[in-house]
Amino acid sequence: MSSSGTGYGTAVTAWRAAAPDWDAYTRHAFVEGLRDGTLPRAAFLHYLAQDYVFLKHFSRAWALAIVKADTLPEMEAATATVHGLLHYEMGLHVKICAEAGIDAETLAATPEHPGNMAYTRYVLEAGYSGDFLDLLAALAPCVLGYGEIGARLAAEATSDTYGDWIGTYAGDDYQGICRDVGALIDGALTHRLGPDYATLPRFAMLSARFAQATTLEVGFWDMGLSPSSAPA
Amino acid sequence: MSSSGTGYGTAVTAWRAAAPDWDAYTRHAFVEGLRDGTLPRAAFLHYLAQDYVFLKHFSRAWALAIVKADTLPEMEAATATVHGLLHYEMGLHVKICAEAGIDAETLAATPEHPGNMAYTRYVLEAGYSGDFLDLLAALAPCVLGYGEIGARLAAEATSDTYGDWIGTYAGDDYQGICRDVGALIDGALTHRLGPDYATLPRFAMLSARFAQATTLEVGFWDMGLSPSSAPA
Amino acid sequence: MSSSGTGYGTAVTAWRAAAPDWDAYTRHAFVEGLRDGTLPRAAFLHYLAQDYVFLKHFSRAWALAIVKADTLPEMEAATATVHGLLHYEMGLHVKICAEAGIDAETLAATPEHPGNMAYTRYVLEAGYSGDFLDLLAALAPCVLGYGEIGARLAAEATSDTYGDWIGTYAGDDYQGICRDVGALIDGALTHRLGPDYATLPRFAMLSARFAQATTLEVGFWDMGLSPSSAPA
Amino acid sequence: MSSSGTGYGTAVTAWRAAAPDWDAYTRHAFVEGLRDGTLPRAAFLHYLAQDYVFLKHFSRAWALAIVKADTLPEMEAATATVHGLLHYEMGLHVKICAEAGIDAETLAATPEHPGNMAYTRYVLEAGYSGDFLDLLAALAPCVLGYGEIGARLAAEATSDTYGDWIGTYAGDDYQGICRDVGALIDGALTHRLGPDYATLPRFAMLSARFAQATTLEVGFWDMGLSPSSAPA
Repeated sequence: MSSSGTGYGTAVTAWRAAAPDWDAYTRHAFVEGLRDGTLPRAAFLHYLAQDYVFLKHFSRAWALAIVKADTLPEMEAATATVHGLLHYEMGLHVKICAEAGIDAETLAATPEHPGNMAYTRYVLEAGYSGDFLDLLAALAPCVLGYGEIGARLAAEATSDTYGDWIGTYAGDDYQGICRDVGALIDGALTHRLGPDYATLPRFAMLSARFAQATTLEVGFWDMGLSPSSAPA
Repeated sequence: MSSSGTGYGTAVTAWRAAAPDWDAYTRHAFVEGLRDGTLPRAAFLHYLAQDYVFLKHFSRAWALAIVKADTLPEMEAATATVHGLLHYEMGLHVKICAEAGIDAETLAATPEHPGNMAYTRYVLEAGYSGDFLDLLAALAPCVLGYGEIGARLAAEATSDTYGDWIGTYAGDDYQGICRDVGALIDGALTHRLGPDYATLPRFAMLSARFAQATTLEVGFWDMGLSPSSAPA
Repeated sequence: MSSSGTGYGTAVTAWRAAAPDWDAYTRHAFVEGLRDGTLPRAAFLHYLAQDYVFLKHFSRAWALAIVKADTLPEMEAATATVHGLLHYEMGLHVKICAEAGIDAETLAATPEHPGNMAYTRYVLEAGYSGDFLDLLAALAPCVLGYGEIGARLAAEATSDTYGDWIGTYAGDDYQGICRDVGALIDGALTHRLGPDYATLPRFAMLSARFAQATTLEVGFWDMGLSPSSAPA
Repeated sequence: MSSSGTGYGTAVTAWRAAAPDWDAYTRHAFVEGLRDGTLPRAAFLHYLAQDYVFLKHFSRAWALAIVKADTLPEMEAATATVHGLLHYEMGLHVKICAEAGIDAETLAATPEHPGNMAYTRYVLEAGYSGDFLDLLAALAPCVLGYGEIGARLAAEATSDTYGDWIGTYAGDDYQGICRDVGALIDGALTHRLGPDYATLPRFAMLSARFAQATTLEVGFWDMGLSPSSAPA
């Protein structure tokens, strides 16, 4: 069961336990506001618009994973994710925003918030300067943290105000993606570093990348709570 | 009409006319052997196996184009190509080889020929060290040259021995991809360099990249004609 | 005379004029505190430690410029900068910090502040995803802004508390580097885009990169003024 | 003693022993012609001109090692190598060629031979797509193979026709570089993979990269022996 955070593979479970900001991320006031419906609509829409910009660069980072993969199955797993992000998840944002009166042009023209930019550039640079593993470790907190949040909120929500959002990330499709990404990471580690990968300094370095990206997720929620901090 | 080489956009037409080896590539003895059916089967299968390895790295290069794109439509165009290469074109190779008694494991284990490696690494490095335009200029000769070859052979073939291969590249699907890639290149140039892009030194540099990749295609056909030159 | 901001070449002069935050950067309260000596020592040392971490990643970005250069003179200019950063400028930080009782190990172990990280990863990612010009445009505000600040403070300082720092950036060596980098940028633009480069959409894109890096410089000074915002 | 190939560190000694083409590279007919003075002058000058082009791209690859390094000492080691290549080794080529009547402009205008290009693009792409270790494994055969060749020829030469060349690579400066690079590789492996790095699949992957670059060195000597194969 993913809400325990142990359902997405061995490596992620270890990295998650070692990331100081994991709870600050997955139990952030923004998340609790989604759970009990108290999150102001303006904050949610501000978040969605920034997340739309985020997903563009996050898709670029997953595309870099295709380039950096070693095997065809690794390439195919990363390609499926790019496809899902560009054609499904970004479309969902367009649809929700449209229902709120924000049209696609406005959404596409959203100025990128500094905290948003800091996150995706960190991930992309980790991937360019490191290898496939560095990139996956930096990508993982977003993908799998949302899976954990979705699964928990589906069980604990006291309001259905944000039921659509919760349902997306708690749903079978998204949970399946999370398990696939967890398996991709475990497989990639074993393929390169052998079965005892968790004992190597390299694993601690990857854990630090995961922890850093987790911290940047906290900043993303902070930004979501402060619509007025957006650039003009 | 693409067999004249002028059907895939303005930039490619100019680059094609300036590439010294364009005819050596598109009218290579290997190509003429496909046209009149005299190409030995062993050469064709050797080529297919190398092309399978090629397509893996070529897909990685198209994935790099997603990373290096500036706009969502550019990203989507590159994503569609990666998807087509990994899920359709590579599958076609697997199917043809299977019919010839070469199973998927054997195909996947094909040792990469030096001329094959030289080509894809040139393209990838051009993309990494340059920008989106450098990458597209290096990717273009393969995509669009095959379109031109397919269209010509469909009109001029005197044998149907290699009719399936010819039909693939002469077909509406592939010709549509060629037109899309040509339009992507023209659009990317205008977006960055303005309408008079062809007058800039940058355009001549891109033309040199296109010409270099064209020369590497000649080497690929040469390799195809010499099955015994393959590494053990 | 560089304090007018027109002494470092044509392109930089245009980009500087178009960057909304240029004055916010070069006339920041931190800078004014260096000028009149009112900057608290703790803030200065906090800044120096973060700048030491910054220079490591900034050197990596200049090394990427060597990789992305087209000509030997471009490579040599970038190499000289890497050499100067690693062997001269970082050494200066070690020396000043040592005099303040911060030893080299402590300095090297400085935790990277989020605003610091955001800046260097933006520059590196611009370089990886773009080409040599994108990288230079993102590198320029730091190099040339410090030159402009140094030259102005040398003329306007009302205290010699921070005279060493001012003297470093106002000095002939550093001003020479600034002129060289300005000439490198003008030459690289002309080499690729021709003499009318400033009329092209590409130039506006590069100007946007310069403006973005300038904004990130403002955040760096903000961080310098808030020693307590540093991670533990 | 380096002529036994065991003087440049633990990892390189293992990779060298596992590279099928190591002797084909270090005892190539070109090398034996340097040893006994029978190498035709035209072949030597053809080689030098191609090597000049090679060193430009090889310097770019070492600069990429600065970008991909994790620690300051790793960055400094790579920077020293870039500096040495650009300012010392390339200058040596200019000098020898000048003595043979080939001026610097002619040298700089040397068309890049396909086998030359294949090698450097392989190395650069290995570095971009992999991490610091992948890059070092691809860089090592050139640096350390020349050290081994120089040391052996200094002991075994029967002619002083190519004594300058031999002396360069047998000399203390170059042998010191080889030991430094060997130590850099061993240190980088231990830093990332721990003391038992040689037991990991990753080490076998790096060994394969080393072997591939070794094979590309054989092609480089082949090219040197065939001046007429140069592009017009």
